Amino acid sequence: MYYIGVDLGGTNIAAGLVDEKLNIVRKGSVPTNAKRPMDEIMKDMADLCKKLIADEGISVSDVKYAGIASPGTCDSKNGVVVYANNLNMKDYPIAARLSEYSGIENVYIDNDANAAAYAETICGAAKGAKNAIVITLGTGLGGGIIIDGKIYSGSNFAGGELGHTVIERNGAQCSCGRKGCWEAYSSATALIRMTNEAMEKNPDSYMHEIAQKAGKVSGRTAFDGARAGDKTAKAVVDEFISYLALGVGNMINIFQPEIFCIGGGICNEGEYLLAPLREKLVAETYGNKLSCTVEKCALGNDAGILGAAVLGITL
Amino acid sequence: MYYIGVDLGGTNIAAGLVDEKLNIVRKGSVPTNAKRPMDEIMKDMADLCKKLIADEGISVSDVKYAGIASPGTCDSKNGVVVYANNLNMKDYPIAARLSEYSGIENVYIDNDANAAAYAETICGAAKGAKNAIVITLGTGLGGGIIIDGKIYSGSNFAGGELGHTVIERNGAQCSCGRKGCWEAYSSATALIRMTNEAMEKNPDSYMHEIAQKAGKVSGRTAFDGARAGDKTAKAVVDEFISYLALGVGNMINIFQPEIFCIGGGICNEGEYLLAPLREKLVAETYGNKLSCTVEKCALGNDAGILGAAVLGITL
Repeated sequence: MYYIGVDLGGTNIAAGLVDEKLNIVRKGSVPTNAKRPMDEIMKDMADLCKKLIADEGISVSDVKYAGIASPGTCDSKNGVVVYANNLNMKDYPIAARLSEYSGIENVYIDNDANAAAYAETICGAAKGAKNAIVITLGTGLGGGIIIDGKIYSGSNFAGGELGHTVIERNGAQCSCGRKGCWEAYSSATALIRMTNEAMEKNPDSYMHEIAQKAGKVSGRTAFDGARAGDKTAKAVVDEFISYLALGVGNMINIFQPEIFCIGGGICNEGEYLLAPLREKLVAETYGNKLSCTVEKCALGNDAGILGAAVLGITL
Repeated sequence: MYYIGVDLGGTNIAAGLVDEKLNIVRKGSVPTNAKRPMDEIMKDMADLCKKLIADEGISVSDVKYAGIASPGTCDSKNGVVVYANNLNMKDYPIAARLSEYSGIENVYIDNDANAAAYAETICGAAKGAKNAIVITLGTGLGGGIIIDGKIYSGSNFAGGELGHTVIERNGAQCSCGRKGCWEAYSSATALIRMTNEAMEKNPDSYMHEIAQKAGKVSGRTAFDGARAGDKTAKAVVDEFISYLALGVGNMINIFQPEIFCIGGGICNEGEYLLAPLREKLVAETYGNKLSCTVEKCALGNDAGILGAAVLGITL
């Protein structure tokens, strides 16, 4: 028996055939071409699933279900994408469509951040945790809430917008319209903004050299600079981690999860990010005692495929 | 069949005998004398329960269970108060003790804010809601999270500290040690601080007259002044509601509950508080569309007793 996990992105549709031990045995991807009518996109998604099945030499009846991790607000009960801005979906019956086009009877869906968080509790860094919070630091700050072993997305499937909580009133402009959202301080985008600002003010910083070699300022520039001993870079990293601790502390005070997982490219900094974060969290949590484990996500680039593939599993 | 609800406070122990329709048929209270050994306090609590039973002319076997709403961190699974600062409880088996002293076989416990929130979903303003957030604006800002019809308190029973989430980095000092917590802007204590500051800066404000008549500055002073047309008072009320909207907006973006309930004395201002709050919430919630009902709590002073009395009810 197999599962199929589909990670529907704005650029590519990635899919994986996953065995019962949750190993990805076969992977593939096709361009999304997001401007097309959704039905066309779904036909390509179905063909991709059918190709994985054929290439593995199995039949569609060997696939217990397919899962789709989609952007936007996903009505997981009815398999409908309520709204997804970058894919022109509004009340789109995505599960029924994939089922129709692929012949796979059961199709589950959820929001991509929720699915990735769920995967971490099923087979990742939070394996076995009943209550877990997972955030991803990328272009934005995505959040996934796992409560009592299930994805929590509120009464309208739109919950879990952890990045869109204000931590600095009248602070930095956020893409959502509010000012001072956590996302505006702790996303990779925010780190790059902070890095650029510090570089402008400090023309002697070693970060200029790092950025020049790399061809751009990235989320790594400040961390690389700090590791090389650059004072300005160290200050950027310290400020970034302070803001991160502030937001993570807020979430721990609310949720008191067993484990708090952090994903996204910045997490490749590993303990250089996590050790000072845990240290700062002591002062940022109620009772001044860090009560939960703080770790980096384990599933990396496969989180989307695996997140989709485990949507039908309940523990 | 009856339930008994006990509201254990730092000053008084209040208890009520509650019938199956969740009407309080008999109430009583005794002083806590919080400095005493807990066993003595529990003997008085048991005597109060026995008195309610005797006065009603029923027997202890007519009481299905007793519930205790306690301050502090409550291990509701084992009936143990893990920690309560103002009552010298540490790993105290409060449920077993009440059972032993009163003869009531089944005793449930939970944190008082959680119990009050649960009561609102069982028989109050949030009746029937599966996902609800309840905050109480008093000396502090207490929070209760109801998810899937159950109290959520995290993996260590210490969750739901909604008031201890920073909304203004490096802002007003909070009692918890952090700076800029929501509690430091939206509690009654915070409103009084804002009122005092505005009065000092504006000796001509009508609020001085209001406070003099009342004998003190209270959480009502600014609201009474605003209703009377005083400009300074209006600005205080507007700022207070802006901060409240910011914090409520954060929680809606996280939880997307069906209903958000607000309790505490300030809520007696009714629509004078709630109407502008709902208006401000449009800009403070994701997608700029207020998705949930915002109402005041319905149970008032009885929330503690009723919260305790419904702890054994699951819907």
